[in-house]
Amino acid sequence: MRCSRGRVEEEALRAVKPTRRQLLILSSFLSLIKEKLESCLAKELPGVEWRVEPVGSYAKGTMLRDKWELDVFVLINRDRDWIKARGEELLRRCLRGLPATAKYSEHPYLTVQLMGLQADVVPAPLLSEPRGVMGVERTPFHKEWVVRRLERNRCLADDIRLLKSFLKGIGVYGAETRVGGFSGYLSEVLIIAAGGFRALLEEASRWRPPVYFDPEGWGSLDRLKRRYPDSPLLVPDPVDPDRNVAAAVTRRRLAEFILAARLYLEEPSTFYFHALQPPVDPKPLPGVLVVFEGDFTVLPPDSLWGRLKRVAEALFSALKRSGFPVTHYSLQTDEAGTAMAFIGSLETHLAPVEVVEGPEAWGVHGRVKGFLAARGKQGALAWITGEGFIAGVRPRREANIVSVTRRMLSRLPGIPGTRGLHVEECPGGARCIEAARLADPTPSWLRLALARR
Amino acid sequence: MRCSRGRVEEEALRAVKPTRRQLLILSSFLSLIKEKLESCLAKELPGVEWRVEPVGSYAKGTMLRDKWELDVFVLINRDRDWIKARGEELLRRCLRGLPATAKYSEHPYLTVQLMGLQADVVPAPLLSEPRGVMGVERTPFHKEWVVRRLERNRCLADDIRLLKSFLKGIGVYGAETRVGGFSGYLSEVLIIAAGGFRALLEEASRWRPPVYFDPEGWGSLDRLKRRYPDSPLLVPDPVDPDRNVAAAVTRRRLAEFILAARLYLEEPSTFYFHALQPPVDPKPLPGVLVVFEGDFTVLPPDSLWGRLKRVAEALFSALKRSGFPVTHYSLQTDEAGTAMAFIGSLETHLAPVEVVEGPEAWGVHGRVKGFLAARGKQGALAWITGEGFIAGVRPRREANIVSVTRRMLSRLPGIPGTRGLHVEECPGGARCIEAARLADPTPSWLRLALARR
Repeated sequence: MRCSRGRVEEEALRAVKPTRRQLLILSSFLSLIKEKLESCLAKELPGVEWRVEPVGSYAKGTMLRDKWELDVFVLINRDRDWIKARGEELLRRCLRGLPATAKYSEHPYLTVQLMGLQADVVPAPLLSEPRGVMGVERTPFHKEWVVRRLERNRCLADDIRLLKSFLKGIGVYGAETRVGGFSGYLSEVLIIAAGGFRALLEEASRWRPPVYFDPEGWGSLDRLKRRYPDSPLLVPDPVDPDRNVAAAVTRRRLAEFILAARLYLEEPSTFYFHALQPPVDPKPLPGVLVVFEGDFTVLPPDSLWGRLKRVAEALFSALKRSGFPVTHYSLQTDEAGTAMAFIGSLETHLAPVEVVEGPEAWGVHGRVKGFLAARGKQGALAWITGEGFIAGVRPRREANIVSVTRRMLSRLPGIPGTRGLHVEECPGGARCIEAARLADPTPSWLRLALARR
Repeated sequence: MRCSRGRVEEEALRAVKPTRRQLLILSSFLSLIKEKLESCLAKELPGVEWRVEPVGSYAKGTMLRDKWELDVFVLINRDRDWIKARGEELLRRCLRGLPATAKYSEHPYLTVQLMGLQADVVPAPLLSEPRGVMGVERTPFHKEWVVRRLERNRCLADDIRLLKSFLKGIGVYGAETRVGGFSGYLSEVLIIAAGGFRALLEEASRWRPPVYFDPEGWGSLDRLKRRYPDSPLLVPDPVDPDRNVAAAVTRRRLAEFILAARLYLEEPSTFYFHALQPPVDPKPLPGVLVVFEGDFTVLPPDSLWGRLKRVAEALFSALKRSGFPVTHYSLQTDEAGTAMAFIGSLETHLAPVEVVEGPEAWGVHGRVKGFLAARGKQGALAWITGEGFIAGVRPRREANIVSVTRRMLSRLPGIPGTRGLHVEECPGGARCIEAARLADPTPSWLRLALARR
């Protein structure tokens, strides 16, 4: 079967499709884990129904070349509470001899790491029906749906790989807080429903939020809208019409995808695909850099990124209100010892005086008196505006972006684990060089696209 | 009869009450005009009822010392059309031998000027009932109401003088467009209704717009509100409940009066009264001065001030939108060859680059492409905001207040009669010295009040 694709997509696919060797290695790794689990479970759970099931992009055949990870579910005919209470200990016994660490998201699970390979082994109840099911319990049903649909059209698996690489290339791949973008499963659903990579981009180029994209024709728009009122993209889960597969996608990430789709269709280029994007020199803008130092392993990564984002958003708005011509904010953290927020501002110093608006002339007299007393001390400039407010001029307490930021930070909730806090102006500050990428508001793909115009 | 007043008010009254000599001179002037009119009208209008009636502050006994003007109505038992068609010519004949010029507001009238004295002689229908009457035709009824009420309380005439001087001192006296303040009749009504100068200031210090002040207890608030929806001060005319005596008063002038009343009551001072206000050196702020030169006698003064105000308001808003930290605007014109508008701005130069927000990523594709093409040429900085807009950085076309103002002026309706237009930055421009008073946003009384705090 021939799959119809453009030259650029063929080139991208050659760069992102896993090699035969890679698949062989992962397949042996899977056999090793599977056999170990199966022989153990046969002994540990006599008379109980169970199944070891590979899920994830390897199992679905939609994996990218730079991925060396497996996801394996251990489905046991026991309820949620039993799994929560006993699942981890059971798997730990069964995987004895392999280097495994316990992790926890909603569910406990184990991660096996071996010679650069990784497998997440997740215990879950064996269920026959996806409706009303929670969190990771849906994963086996997702796999089943994707595999069945991909069997009907062999071209789609590679188109999913193209989409994932495209999403990575434009920085919108991943449902985690750090990104707020498109998950792997969402990528699969979108390609299957649209019928291909180009077809999806064509649809996306016409999207206007809120977008409702309904792969199975559930017609659940109204219910989804009520449950996800802030979601700009509503994609009912093919295995559960009341769940939005795109719940993590922010308005900004959706906008970036729509714009990239439009620009790609106008002029397809390999730089939209993550594996083929050339390095781009940053063009840093001036601004203020806030560096938190401490031990941030105390927070789950999603929570750390979320707190960092709230700090940056609050600073961005407050600096804007103070009169700084802010451009953007960017975040970075190694999720260990350092977390940084950069707020771009075309100017980092304001005029030494500012207009201040006080109470209305008919306002509470104590406030009127206080305002006038301050004006009397600060240059004796005051007047009444057309709306009846008393206005005046005052020296700015802080005209520098660093001092304004410091004062604002002292009023914001901090980040747990912080031991040190540095605030510096960029360019100029000692750590601005590390932050050059954060100080450039333009994503690489967009810089490359602009260069062609 | 002793009138209860403070020391400051007694001092102010000594400065503003007309002298005996002044009243004698005006009285002779009135007799001259009155006799000339009466002997003439007896011949010109045989069998028609008519009356020559002095009105205005001289006739009401509420005049200030620096006023040397009379108002004389010639009331004739003929309808409005007859007066309009024949009034001017009739008076012109009757006043033959005196230096009289014809003027026109709603009505034609004649002005007699003699050795520094002036009398406006106004023809109007002789009416018995003030309801439904228009414009100047109300004047005789106003006079009658004021005179009758002043007869009951001899102190009030001087309190009216105090209020007029106070209103002049704080720059809110006069119903003309230039001021947008309190007319002489409104001053009389307010004092009569409040029962005195101090009593009125006490009331005003508690005002909060919209203020309804009802001297005759008409209870016409709802009707007035509907007819004057934008008036911050509603004072039903004692001789016509459907008319707002305070229709000219702007929100700003009302606010200035309320604030001055509060500050005066806290600490009475002679500088609130126009005749006793010491000169105050201006503290000019930076800004832009627009000078129109030409022949502005082609416009009635109210219309000229109105157009000048609209130009200044439009420039003020547009400069604010452009990012200038504007403070205030002020106007000046000799109503002949020069008209000036000053817009204060704490900075007169902006940063050379600015943030520009473009269409949403899902916007009309032509606009998206155009916006990105411009960004590509101007530094290749572009990004998507949290709301999905495409933003970027562009060099400012005009960073100087003079060039921004010039461009804006080219889009605004001009002032008829203009022959030349100068725009200059202050301080620095050649004409900024003349405009020093305009460049100071603080009224003298408020500067003096601030100095005491």
